[in-house]
Amino acid sequence: MKQSIVTLDMEGVLTPEIWIAVARATGIERLRLTTRDVPDYDVLMRGRLAVLEEHELTLSEIQSVIGRLHPLPGALEFLRELRSFTQVIILSDTFEQFAQPLLRQLEWPTLFCHQLRVENDRILDYQLRIPNQKRATVDALRSLNYRVIAAGDSYNDMAMLAAADAGILFRPPAKLRSDYPAFPAVRDHAGLIRMIRKAYDGV
Amino acid sequence: MKQSIVTLDMEGVLTPEIWIAVARATGIERLRLTTRDVPDYDVLMRGRLAVLEEHELTLSEIQSVIGRLHPLPGALEFLRELRSFTQVIILSDTFEQFAQPLLRQLEWPTLFCHQLRVENDRILDYQLRIPNQKRATVDALRSLNYRVIAAGDSYNDMAMLAAADAGILFRPPAKLRSDYPAFPAVRDHAGLIRMIRKAYDGV
Repeated sequence: MKQSIVTLDMEGVLTPEIWIAVARATGIERLRLTTRDVPDYDVLMRGRLAVLEEHELTLSEIQSVIGRLHPLPGALEFLRELRSFTQVIILSDTFEQFAQPLLRQLEWPTLFCHQLRVENDRILDYQLRIPNQKRATVDALRSLNYRVIAAGDSYNDMAMLAAADAGILFRPPAKLRSDYPAFPAVRDHAGLIRMIRKAYDGV
Repeated sequence: MKQSIVTLDMEGVLTPEIWIAVARATGIERLRLTTRDVPDYDVLMRGRLAVLEEHELTLSEIQSVIGRLHPLPGALEFLRELRSFTQVIILSDTFEQFAQPLLRQLEWPTLFCHQLRVENDRILDYQLRIPNQKRATVDALRSLNYRVIAAGDSYNDMAMLAAADAGILFRPPAKLRSDYPAFPAVRDHAGLIRMIRKAYDGV
């Protein structure tokens, strides 16, 4: 029997959507858009950076908003249970500078993500570590002879789910679910852990 | 600046050598040998399995010995500090069935390892997920555009250290250190975190 590993999206599965929280705290409506709304990540990010510049928002200001966020209800308990029987890597298109306060509250699970280029507290640019990192990481884990079980909730998770040995949609929006009918969908963390255990046991 | 990730050996760096503990608890001297003594891992493991069979030792008996072990003094604090500023993956040639009680005490860091083939509580065989997994994982992480900082204490860590962007010897035996003079060596976790921070900052 092959060894398994789980890859999880972060925002929407374990934590709130960071940019939506920033939108709420700053009152800037245009920051509410996510990959759920704009599938092209570069278009989305260029728009966000333009908005930050326009409103002269600094990294510290955004970090202080993130510092007040908490993981989704039940996410920590879900992750504790998951880590007790399998290995987990969180794959997120967020940035090192944003993730830390949330990772601490989740007891430091391993996260693969990107980074921001910052100078004097101004976010100058974003730097993808590699393009399509979720997909590339699943491929890399499979090349290390892992059976990969992946879960996510957004368009930018679909290449990861499709490349994995088992892919699970977590609380997907209706359109995503109907665009990808082949993947089972779960509504909460209890359902997700059940589905992961099933995939883990190979049933 | 490139994103960094740390790969760590487990036994000897974070936890005691599991087989030595089993040797001590059972009084079987031949189980004291480790990769420090026998660089060829398959030779070492075949010998261990033969000894277990000879003494009719079950998986549960070995797990109950491991259940009484603790991480090395300072290892948890070291790992907490490390995980607060970088991502960490533990690369060990141990087995899922052995690692769990120690991982719990280390607050569930991500571990890549192997598994045992077990039937009715008897260890029939061991199953390497892939050969040279430490080296292969470093290569995979580098292909994901990570700068890899690796630390270990044994012969089976040297391919990992050599493939990494920065390799550090942790408390190496004298012979290993003189066989591999190019790698810096540290004596304790405080030294290791200092050396990792230096590599992390690129100095």
